[in-house]
Amino acid sequence: MKVSLSRIIGASLALLCLSTSLQAQHLQKYLRQYDKQLMEEYVQFLSIPNVSTDSVNIRKNAAFIQEMMNRKGIKAELLNGTTTGVTPAVFGEIKTPGATKTIGFYAHYDGQPVNPKQWYAGTDPFKPVLITAPLESGGKIMGPYQAGEPVNPAWRILGRGSADDKAGVMAILNAYEALVKTSQRLNANIKFLFEGEEEVGSIHLNEIFRQHKAKLQADCWIIIDAPRHVSGRKTLIYGVRGDVNMALTVYGPKRPLHSGNYGNWAPNPALKLAQLLASMKDEHGKVLVKGFYDDVTPLTATEKQALAQIPNQDETLKKELGVNAPEVATRSLVESIMQPTLNINGLHSANVGSMASNVIPTKAEAVLDLRLVKGNDFRKQVEKVIAHIKAKGFQVLDREPTEEDRRNYPNLIKIEVEHGYNAQRTPMDLPIAKSIQVAVQSTTKEPLVLIPSMGGSLPLYLFEEILGTKVITVPIVNYDNNQHAENENVKIQYLWEGIETIAAIMQARF
Amino acid sequence: MKVSLSRIIGASLALLCLSTSLQAQHLQKYLRQYDKQLMEEYVQFLSIPNVSTDSVNIRKNAAFIQEMMNRKGIKAELLNGTTTGVTPAVFGEIKTPGATKTIGFYAHYDGQPVNPKQWYAGTDPFKPVLITAPLESGGKIMGPYQAGEPVNPAWRILGRGSADDKAGVMAILNAYEALVKTSQRLNANIKFLFEGEEEVGSIHLNEIFRQHKAKLQADCWIIIDAPRHVSGRKTLIYGVRGDVNMALTVYGPKRPLHSGNYGNWAPNPALKLAQLLASMKDEHGKVLVKGFYDDVTPLTATEKQALAQIPNQDETLKKELGVNAPEVATRSLVESIMQPTLNINGLHSANVGSMASNVIPTKAEAVLDLRLVKGNDFRKQVEKVIAHIKAKGFQVLDREPTEEDRRNYPNLIKIEVEHGYNAQRTPMDLPIAKSIQVAVQSTTKEPLVLIPSMGGSLPLYLFEEILGTKVITVPIVNYDNNQHAENENVKIQYLWEGIETIAAIMQARF
Repeated sequence: MKVSLSRIIGASLALLCLSTSLQAQHLQKYLRQYDKQLMEEYVQFLSIPNVSTDSVNIRKNAAFIQEMMNRKGIKAELLNGTTTGVTPAVFGEIKTPGATKTIGFYAHYDGQPVNPKQWYAGTDPFKPVLITAPLESGGKIMGPYQAGEPVNPAWRILGRGSADDKAGVMAILNAYEALVKTSQRLNANIKFLFEGEEEVGSIHLNEIFRQHKAKLQADCWIIIDAPRHVSGRKTLIYGVRGDVNMALTVYGPKRPLHSGNYGNWAPNPALKLAQLLASMKDEHGKVLVKGFYDDVTPLTATEKQALAQIPNQDETLKKELGVNAPEVATRSLVESIMQPTLNINGLHSANVGSMASNVIPTKAEAVLDLRLVKGNDFRKQVEKVIAHIKAKGFQVLDREPTEEDRRNYPNLIKIEVEHGYNAQRTPMDLPIAKSIQVAVQSTTKEPLVLIPSMGGSLPLYLFEEILGTKVITVPIVNYDNNQHAENENVKIQYLWEGIETIAAIMQARF
Repeated sequence: MKVSLSRIIGASLALLCLSTSLQAQHLQKYLRQYDKQLMEEYVQFLSIPNVSTDSVNIRKNAAFIQEMMNRKGIKAELLNGTTTGVTPAVFGEIKTPGATKTIGFYAHYDGQPVNPKQWYAGTDPFKPVLITAPLESGGKIMGPYQAGEPVNPAWRILGRGSADDKAGVMAILNAYEALVKTSQRLNANIKFLFEGEEEVGSIHLNEIFRQHKAKLQADCWIIIDAPRHVSGRKTLIYGVRGDVNMALTVYGPKRPLHSGNYGNWAPNPALKLAQLLASMKDEHGKVLVKGFYDDVTPLTATEKQALAQIPNQDETLKKELGVNAPEVATRSLVESIMQPTLNINGLHSANVGSMASNVIPTKAEAVLDLRLVKGNDFRKQVEKVIAHIKAKGFQVLDREPTEEDRRNYPNLIKIEVEHGYNAQRTPMDLPIAKSIQVAVQSTTKEPLVLIPSMGGSLPLYLFEEILGTKVITVPIVNYDNNQHAENENVKIQYLWEGIETIAAIMQARF
């Protein structure tokens, strides 16, 4: 492309002076008027448990979204897939007279599993409360939001899904409603899609896309997910990493053994697992699995330039996260996420703490998370790791070992590979990508943060491969939202700003 | 020493022909006459719950033992320690006119905690019943022993403490009574000590020993505990390993991070822990901590010879435990337990299985168990491991890291060291040790199994360090007694043979 990124940003800053004055006034007035109603609606929504595998409650979420949409004048339907057991996606569509473009908005309403014991004492992941700030930063728990109570945008809503990604559903629907209620015009046809299986790998999105290919056509799908840049600046993301999980179980003796009577005779599976994991990465953060970095597509000049302009927040992050040095000492966060990863999600063998006893455990487990970048194929990446494990002398099983396995092999490992998918990346200099950039820039005085690919994963390759459409991710929530973990929260101000951002995209000029 | 072990065994076998005929006749007659009474007494004893921490019932056990002793003509007293909250040890003493030696007999009356749900259906750990064999080997539950009912020595008594270690208390007191009732003479002064805190680490034995140092003097204390060798042969054990635990916590970011957004930038504590643990042992089972094996007192020629003569049960064990190869391929179990160990008792970081999520965990924990042999000092062994951890680039803390620690050090670890103690080993060729060996050998035609040290740990160093006496362990119960677990049981024949063994030691010639 010829137009440099700085010129695009320059153009968008010029527009800003016009459109913030027009749009922002309407929207800010709307939010001042309706913030209590929005809060009540959101608290109701967050009170419906949404763990992806909780099929009863997950359908209650879909029904709740459908009702919200109908209330806001969007005729909603459930897309149920062609096989049984599909969690429905909720779809809706608004035709705009004279529009030449169609923009789709996607968010997901399911959430990660919860371990309530790990949450702040006295809180429940599905009984949202207000907090003034995270407790570890001196915040306080203010209890549930009471209907009619004034809303303090500096506070946060605590609950599973509050940021990832019911915030997306909430902001998309309210951006549309705000435009309607403030009598503003749309520039494009608008489509809505809310998925309920994102946190389990969007296992049926494929099927739903194939079944409703025509219905889901758009010039660009906007994904409302992930956090805004650490700098707090509004952010556009043009790609995602792919992802695949591997669950490893290394086997020891058939029953837990007294570590005195059998110690240093019976082999210890926790040690074997530690040795195996240690063999996968060197002390400088380099993955030692053969060929791990081989298939990576190099960055384009535009992408390299965009990376160079992302504010480097590494020092702030290091301080906030209590990290002295990154895994690869010489590499910034934004550079790091343009590479494939191998992460240990969790480890477990027998007990630690007050439950620990002097035993040789029967097994040791780890879950690996492989993130993939453009060029990687998830099946091939998994094969590389399995080849590494075999080269370390393990007999690889896809089930518990039999008596015969135990007799024949000194090192037994079960490997379970979960559904994975590849990375996706949209060129940053496409005309539609530029239009969206300009629209978002119009809502803020600060330059946008433009990220060639996020560190996280979404199965966005499906939009390209099946629907043949472009995809851009527009994050709206605070970066310190604890998504996927305990004490997930969203800063209310970010929710309001997300509504403004989305409304601007709905009014984008092409 | 000059006299070879085989010659000692030879000598004892020669004696056997004499003494079995003399002693065994008396004792076997006694047992035929009194077996029903012994059973009734034992069932009553086992019916008093004896979990170490159950302070009310544990004192009922002490009182029951005191009454038994008084009934058998041994004046008993409670040793209460000097601090509050000490579970009393029960002490008694018999002076033998003309005796030149004093032999003490130790057993413990407390037991491990019970989870009644895990026991055979319909049984109660504290309502002893007879079983024909373990149910998993086709045995049947025969119900409680009925007073006066003939006793089948092939059957077993099921109940907590039946083997570990009320069997010890029972056998010691009845061996003495049998000698008295059959008018046999003792060769030594006899002391009796029954502890009530063994299963919680003998936390006050130290205190009781210091308080009653003179009273507890003996030439040798005989510990009646642990099972006979897997071969079923009568067994003498001359030592125990020492033990110390280390709890390690490696720190990652202050909050759990999304493995996509921060993966391969923020360091992963689970990987650091795996790398650290892997650095401690090579793939052939050798501990790589500098100086780990340095202080080990080499085995004496007698000990080496004894080890060589222990029946090798490794193939049976490998099959039973589902183990293809031991940690050190060329080393037998009995050789292994003569070395210090470094065992991983447990591992934990974030979650695995259905609770796993794509995060960089905040911490990773491991518990290490170090077993020690003669020559090791537990404090020094711990220091070696700490030095190893420091050499791997960790800043070692004894508390959670502060903000400053996190800023200053790339690798942070908390190390908590639990109360530890050293190994103890009695030379097998001491005259008193030989006298005891000969006495025990006189009760059986099969050669004894002589074990220089057991793999497990007991604080027997206290007998040497505080009382300045020798210690030998004489196990009497069947090896498949499920000690510390559900369905603990003792084979009645082993109980009778234990009485014979102890009576022979009481008559040992010095």
